[in-house]
Amino acid sequence: MSNANDKSILIVGSMAFDDLELPSGNFADVVGGSATYCAYAASLFSGVKIVAVVGDDFPAATLDSLAQRGVNTDGIERVDGKTFRWKGRYAQNLSSRTTLDTQLNVFADFRPKLPTSYQKCTHLLLGNIHPALQLEVLDQVEKPEFVAADTMNFWIEGERPTLERVLKKIDCLVVNDEEIRQLSGEHNIKQAAARVLKMGPKRLIVKRGEYGAMLFDEHGIFFAPAYPLEAEVDPTGAGDVFAGAFMGFLARESEMDRGSLRRALMMAATVASFCVESVGTERVQTLTREDVAHRLESLRSLVHFGA
Amino acid sequence: MSNANDKSILIVGSMAFDDLELPSGNFADVVGGSATYCAYAASLFSGVKIVAVVGDDFPAATLDSLAQRGVNTDGIERVDGKTFRWKGRYAQNLSSRTTLDTQLNVFADFRPKLPTSYQKCTHLLLGNIHPALQLEVLDQVEKPEFVAADTMNFWIEGERPTLERVLKKIDCLVVNDEEIRQLSGEHNIKQAAARVLKMGPKRLIVKRGEYGAMLFDEHGIFFAPAYPLEAEVDPTGAGDVFAGAFMGFLARESEMDRGSLRRALMMAATVASFCVESVGTERVQTLTREDVAHRLESLRSLVHFGA
Repeated sequence: MSNANDKSILIVGSMAFDDLELPSGNFADVVGGSATYCAYAASLFSGVKIVAVVGDDFPAATLDSLAQRGVNTDGIERVDGKTFRWKGRYAQNLSSRTTLDTQLNVFADFRPKLPTSYQKCTHLLLGNIHPALQLEVLDQVEKPEFVAADTMNFWIEGERPTLERVLKKIDCLVVNDEEIRQLSGEHNIKQAAARVLKMGPKRLIVKRGEYGAMLFDEHGIFFAPAYPLEAEVDPTGAGDVFAGAFMGFLARESEMDRGSLRRALMMAATVASFCVESVGTERVQTLTREDVAHRLESLRSLVHFGA
Repeated sequence: MSNANDKSILIVGSMAFDDLELPSGNFADVVGGSATYCAYAASLFSGVKIVAVVGDDFPAATLDSLAQRGVNTDGIERVDGKTFRWKGRYAQNLSSRTTLDTQLNVFADFRPKLPTSYQKCTHLLLGNIHPALQLEVLDQVEKPEFVAADTMNFWIEGERPTLERVLKKIDCLVVNDEEIRQLSGEHNIKQAAARVLKMGPKRLIVKRGEYGAMLFDEHGIFFAPAYPLEAEVDPTGAGDVFAGAFMGFLARESEMDRGSLRRALMMAATVASFCVESVGTERVQTLTREDVAHRLESLRSLVHFGA
């Protein structure tokens, strides 16, 4: 077993510009993407390496900001053309959103290429990209200690056989309510989870937004509540921050047992709550361990029922 | 302070026939009503007295069944005519329902009249009836130790001034997400709760169905998860069972402090989960403390994050 200092997380995902129509206003060219959010969150706890692609319009300031948080950005390929762009409109109460436009741009031809220095990583987080690309990444790394993957309705519907191959190669799937229901064909969460666990991963995390998150594994079910916020501003990326913080925290733990997974889920819920408090990565990119430790205590007391 | 044996809960609410269109089939003449569900649940823990009205068509077997659970049914008025009837259709996934028909029948002229033996009660649960009737009940009892009340959109919209008078006289309001948002005019749950706590009650419980329940009081926020069920059959009455179990458990506790309220919420979530597993009161009316203790342990482990 490697010691804690050797641990590092490799994150593969998108880096993007988001145009956001939020109840608090419209925000254009907000730097986002799953890899960006995941990396900021994971960097709170562990060394992070990113594999992604950006266009020539992507701000150097973001790459600098990531590097300042200890994120290795060598695997971020910069190519001629425009960065991936997503435009979405949120409902007044932020509980739903509509995609208004998606421009894949340089992301359309993305083939993850890992620098040699990336081939050894203890933890691998396969962001929500084409499952064939997730497999390509898996092929390029030496066997990590722990592999988690995200996916979405688009791949569940259109790329199921490939996605099923991914499921057989990962330790943990991280999805939301709708995705687990679609993947399993079962509405009941407990039954849906049982079906997905039979597809390969030994652990499953179901993110339920303001209703918290659930971990299903061989120890049963664990539930982490969402931190109740007074002001929700922008949920974009909160799910990615959740996954990034989960993996980052887990990489720091000396043992991987029932307790560490549960603590990682509580930590993930805590870090994700900060993400929602401001537009884009604004709050997450300046977050400190002290900020997080304080809120984690509040989250713990939320479920503390002792006398 | 009275000792535990003197504790009893007075429940005021509806007794009804429900016609249920459920994914598992259609069920006619199912005995229901808020007082019925509350009483079965509370009777697990404490002595219960009911004030309600039924028509001459109401089954004596139900009254016998309640009496067998130690429920005092002297305050159930039986009048000529038909019992209150509600007909509803649930969505395939049980997450929403539509009212198809409501017949108030004998409930239309209901004026709660407390038998003399009912005037002393330590705990009072004002079910979801017209707030003017809730006030009439409050006028008829000697000051109880703890008063909780339920309400609904219909009264929030149409009887706000009267409802506001009720709120000033109770210790705890028990409502769901939608109701708290409507009552406060605020979507954010934390802010909505703060507003409602300023209206009178020192404590507020927000029921969120499969997403658990939250308690807001001077100690902050407590969250009880919902027990993850493998088969959800009929959610009718689960909110009433929740409130009944909460009050019943609380009446049994020797002290009313932060810990007892939180344990009561966990117990309420536990008992309510049984209600959803069968049609109507079928499961709740045979529930034992052993059944409940066992499931409570599972619920506790769901939020246990120690090593």
